[in-house]
Amino acid sequence: MRKFGTLALLASVLLFTVSASPTRSPDVQGSPVFGVKLPNDYRDWKLISVAQENGKNNDIRAILGNDIAVKAFRDGKRPFPDGSIIVRLAWRYQSSSRNDKVFPAPQSFVAGEPTNVQVSVKDARRYAATGGWGYGQFQGGLPDKDPAVVQACFACHQKLEKLEGGTDFVFTTYSR
Amino acid sequence: MRKFGTLALLASVLLFTVSASPTRSPDVQGSPVFGVKLPNDYRDWKLISVAQENGKNNDIRAILGNDIAVKAFRDGKRPFPDGSIIVRLAWRYQSSSRNDKVFPAPQSFVAGEPTNVQVSVKDARRYAATGGWGYGQFQGGLPDKDPAVVQACFACHQKLEKLEGGTDFVFTTYSR
Repeated sequence: MRKFGTLALLASVLLFTVSASPTRSPDVQGSPVFGVKLPNDYRDWKLISVAQENGKNNDIRAILGNDIAVKAFRDGKRPFPDGSIIVRLAWRYQSSSRNDKVFPAPQSFVAGEPTNVQVSVKDARRYAATGGWGYGQFQGGLPDKDPAVVQACFACHQKLEKLEGGTDFVFTTYSR
Repeated sequence: MRKFGTLALLASVLLFTVSASPTRSPDVQGSPVFGVKLPNDYRDWKLISVAQENGKNNDIRAILGNDIAVKAFRDGKRPFPDGSIIVRLAWRYQSSSRNDKVFPAPQSFVAGEPTNVQVSVKDARRYAATGGWGYGQFQGGLPDKDPAVVQACFACHQKLEKLEGGTDFVFTTYSR
């Protein structure tokens, strides 16, 4: 049943891709469902905040934004304007034995290998069905092609908005 | 004895400031010993990496750099060229009960209130006595005026370089 649902979704994604750009080859660089791409220059973007997740993620992360998103964060503007892009980078949360040799006590954790990069794009009309946000997850620069992954993005962000309201589906707050 | 040493240092800092700029008032915005200032636009700089410290620090941090420093990090260039500036921002390492309500298990830590900002400036000639680096620590945009604070910066970075070599006194490695 679940497999069938995934297949049906994949089929609809393929159909959408083909119908949306009939003269071009299907876009292999975009995320499923949303067609979100990894922005070329995201690694140069400004810092919004940092965070750390235990559990299955076991990562330390940075949240960057393009200029539209960062301006909205700094001005406290909600909902975010169209064109806002938020990028979450994450790396393995890793104890640093090297730093611990220098510091007064074992206490230092650093960023290890990169895990994945998640991208949220605001387009109120295009992504009307998902609160105005489209999602993508990338490993080694390539999109995760499992539709369940990006659908989980929205499910979780929607849960936040239902719980709090006024978040425009965004977890991160700006750190000054 | 220690108090006397601090006083002597303060006196030499004051003398240096006065002799270096005889027609201007002493620079209240710079760090002691090194005269390092908080760059105006550092919050817009590119991300080098993230880290987390337990113990007395109990913080989560981001390391940003100006264009000269970031280029050197990305190219693996050591020692860093003159003009490189590395800024370490830190915030209280704080459990997020809000995120934990949304996520499958309690696991989420975010950036709380800012603690301090540390700045390292590379100038091989000016800071020849301290490996080419000058240091400053800032709270709420103002420099910590205790010379012991910036001297502790160098002591710790020097310990790293002695232990490893080839670090150019820099802990952080670039995270892709």
